[in-house]
Amino acid sequence: MRQSQLFTKTRREAPKDEVAKNAQLLIRAGFIHKEMAGVYSLLPLGLRVLERISAVIRDEMNKIGGQEILMTTLQQKELWEQTDRWSDSVVDSWFKTKLKDGGEVGLGFTHEEPLTSIMRSHISSYHDLPKLVYQIQWKFRNEERAKSGIVRGREFLMKDLYTFTASEEEHTKLYETVASAYQRIFERLGIGEQTYRTFASGGVFSKYSHEFQCLSDVGEDTVYVHKEKRIAINKEVMNAEVLADLGLSKNELTEAKAVEVGNIFSLGTRFSKALGLRFKGKDGKQEDVIMGSYGIGPTRLMGVLAEVFSDGKGLAWPSAVAPFAAHLVAISGGNGDVTAEADRLYEMLSENGIETLYDDRDVRAGEKFADSDLIGIPKRLVISEKTMSEGGVEVVSRAAGSTMFVSENDLIGHLEQ
Amino acid sequence: MRQSQLFTKTRREAPKDEVAKNAQLLIRAGFIHKEMAGVYSLLPLGLRVLERISAVIRDEMNKIGGQEILMTTLQQKELWEQTDRWSDSVVDSWFKTKLKDGGEVGLGFTHEEPLTSIMRSHISSYHDLPKLVYQIQWKFRNEERAKSGIVRGREFLMKDLYTFTASEEEHTKLYETVASAYQRIFERLGIGEQTYRTFASGGVFSKYSHEFQCLSDVGEDTVYVHKEKRIAINKEVMNAEVLADLGLSKNELTEAKAVEVGNIFSLGTRFSKALGLRFKGKDGKQEDVIMGSYGIGPTRLMGVLAEVFSDGKGLAWPSAVAPFAAHLVAISGGNGDVTAEADRLYEMLSENGIETLYDDRDVRAGEKFADSDLIGIPKRLVISEKTMSEGGVEVVSRAAGSTMFVSENDLIGHLEQ
Repeated sequence: MRQSQLFTKTRREAPKDEVAKNAQLLIRAGFIHKEMAGVYSLLPLGLRVLERISAVIRDEMNKIGGQEILMTTLQQKELWEQTDRWSDSVVDSWFKTKLKDGGEVGLGFTHEEPLTSIMRSHISSYHDLPKLVYQIQWKFRNEERAKSGIVRGREFLMKDLYTFTASEEEHTKLYETVASAYQRIFERLGIGEQTYRTFASGGVFSKYSHEFQCLSDVGEDTVYVHKEKRIAINKEVMNAEVLADLGLSKNELTEAKAVEVGNIFSLGTRFSKALGLRFKGKDGKQEDVIMGSYGIGPTRLMGVLAEVFSDGKGLAWPSAVAPFAAHLVAISGGNGDVTAEADRLYEMLSENGIETLYDDRDVRAGEKFADSDLIGIPKRLVISEKTMSEGGVEVVSRAAGSTMFVSENDLIGHLEQ
Repeated sequence: MRQSQLFTKTRREAPKDEVAKNAQLLIRAGFIHKEMAGVYSLLPLGLRVLERISAVIRDEMNKIGGQEILMTTLQQKELWEQTDRWSDSVVDSWFKTKLKDGGEVGLGFTHEEPLTSIMRSHISSYHDLPKLVYQIQWKFRNEERAKSGIVRGREFLMKDLYTFTASEEEHTKLYETVASAYQRIFERLGIGEQTYRTFASGGVFSKYSHEFQCLSDVGEDTVYVHKEKRIAINKEVMNAEVLADLGLSKNELTEAKAVEVGNIFSLGTRFSKALGLRFKGKDGKQEDVIMGSYGIGPTRLMGVLAEVFSDGKGLAWPSAVAPFAAHLVAISGGNGDVTAEADRLYEMLSENGIETLYDDRDVRAGEKFADSDLIGIPKRLVISEKTMSEGGVEVVSRAAGSTMFVSENDLIGHLEQ
C-alpha cells in the first residue's frame, strides 16, 4: 500500500488520557482510535495486526478439529436465568438493554449458555461426541476500571472454544490437546518464552483451572514462576496445599507481574445439566455432556505484543503479526530517478507477494524514519541516490536495529527468509 | 471436511416459528440457529457462506481504493447528540444501555458519527482527500417486526463504506465508482440480472438516493422496473416529477416486489459540519468535507440468495458463495472398497484445492441425497460400486439437476471449470 493513500496519520505526542503504553503507542502510530475508556476502533494498520493474530489462532483451532461458528451479541434473558447467571448480583459485568416490543436482553460477555443450547439440536448420542466448537467474536463487559488500553476492554475480541465430550477421560485428553495448541499459538506470536501455564482456581468440577500468563509489567496478576519446569502458580491460589500438589517448594519460585493471555477451564456438567444437553451412552442410558471452555483474546494479545515488542522509538512487531512485511522508504531528495526506481521496486515486491507499505510521501527523510520506527514494520527498505548507485537497498531490521546492504537481485530471497 | 465430523444435523421439518423461506431452509440445513426473532447465530456452513459473501464485497471495495477498518458497537451519547441523532424521538431503532460507572451508551445502528469523528484526526488539507473508508461489522436495530428471517435482523452484518471528498464534482465521480462496484458485487453473487439501481428519496443534499433492489417475493418494497434501461423507481417516490426527471412514462414500467440489497447516499456536509470535519482548500480557506455513505448487508444478502437459489428440495448456492465447491457422497452399501476409494478421492480433491464436504456417514443413500439437496453444494460427486467399476464418479449439478459421468482423470479439470 502507498503510504500517501493511507488515511491515518501518526502523531508525535501520546494522548493525555492514556496511561497504558500499548494504547499510547497504538494511538500515536494510527493503529487504533479511542471511542471511550476500554472501547477502541481498529484503523487499517491495527485491523491488519488483529486479523493476523486471529489467523494464527484460527489455524491452530482448525488443526485440532475445531469448527468455527459465530454466535450473537444479543442474549436471551430466559436462557441465562436457567443457569443462574442473569442476575446482576451473580454476574456484575452485564450490559443489558430492552427490546422495543418488550423484554430485556443482555450483551454476551461469554457464550456457554447459547452454545449449550445450540448443541441440544445436534448432539443426541455418544456417536456425536467429542466435538470442538469455537468462535472469534466481540464480547462486552461492563468494567468499572478500564485503564489498560486494549489489554482490558469493555468491548473486546475473544476466541472462545468449547469442548463437548462423553467422559472425563475424553475431556482430559482434549483439555491437554487444547493446552498444547495454546502453547503453539503463543510461540508463533513470539511470546512463547515468557508465557507460562499457570495454576489458578478451579471450580466444582476441577481442583484447578489453567491460565496462560505472559510476564509483563502491564499485567494485573502476580504469579510465582518455575522457569525450568515452565509452570507458574497464580498468587490467588498460592499456598502450601498447591505447592504440595505440584511438588514444588516456595524458594524455587520467582514472583512476577503477568498478564493473562489465555485460560482453559473444565466446566464438567454445570451447563449441560442446567440446560438439558444430554446424550445416549453406549449402554443406552441418558447422560449429561461434559464440557470445557478455552479463551484467548486477540485484542488483548495485540496490546500485550505492543507492550512487549516496543522501545523508545515505537512499535516493533514480530513478523507473524506485523501489518506489513516490508516498509519501503524512498529518500528521493527531489530526484525523479529515485522515485521511479522506488515505484519499480514496489511493483516487484507486490508481484512477489511481499506485503509492503511504500512511503512515497513528499516529506523529510527524518519524518519518514521516525514514522517507520513508530509503526514498527519488521524490515525497512531504504532507497536513495546512494543505494541506487550501488544497485540495491539498505535493509534495516526494526527489532535488532541492524543495517545491511542488499542487492536488488537478492532482495526477495532475503525477505522470504 | 468429513460430514461425520460436522457437528450440525439437518432436520426434516421447518421450525414452526419461522414464516420466511430463507430462515426455514437455513435452519433446516443447519446453517443458522435462531436465538430470538431477528437474531441468528451462524453455524459452520452458514459462516462459510457469509464469509464468502463478505470476501466478494471486500475485494470490490479494495479494488476501488477502500481502506478497511472496524469501528465499535458501543457508541458515545455525546457524539450523537451533536448531530441530533441520539434522541429516541428522532431515531426509533436504538438499543441503549448504561455504563456501570455512569452514563448511557448506544449500540451502533450505523456509523457516520464515529467515523466522521475519527477522520478529524487524519484529514486537514485537500491533499488528504479523497478517501474511501469501510468496515464489515455487526449493527443493531431495535426492530418491532422481525419476521423475514436473516433478511431483516435486529443484529445483522453490514458493509458500510463512507467517502470523503473536497468537492461536489469529486463526490459525484466517486459515487458512480461505488455504484459500479456494487453492480459488480451483485453480478458476482449471481443476482446481477434481477437487481436494479432504483431511484429513492434523497435528502437535503441530493434529490435522490439510490437503492439496489433485487426482485423477490421476500421483499418489503414495491418498485417500478424498466428492464431495458436497467433502472427502477421506488414506489415511495413514484410520481410525475420523477418520471419527468428520468424521461420515462409510467406504462413502460412493471410493478414488482423487491428487497433492498444495497443503498448509496449523498450526505453532503450534514455530518462534517455538525462534527467539525474540515480541510484547508487550495486557496487556504477552511471548508467542510463532503461525504457519502454506501451500505450492503452480507447477512441480508445471504437470506436473499437462499430465497432466490432454492427449490422444493432445499438450497442451491451459486458457486461464488457455496460453503463447499463439491459434495462427495459415498454410497458404499457396506463395501469397504468403495469407502477406501472415496477416502482416496477425498484426499485427491483436497490436495487439488477443491473444497469438499465428504459424506462419509454410515446412513442410507436416500438420506444422504436428501441432505445433499437440502444443503445445496453446487456439484455432488457420487461414488458407488457402479461408478467405481467405470473408473469415475457421477456428477450431479444441484441447480440444473443434470447428471453426467466424469472419469477420475477428468474430475479436477471438470470441477475447476
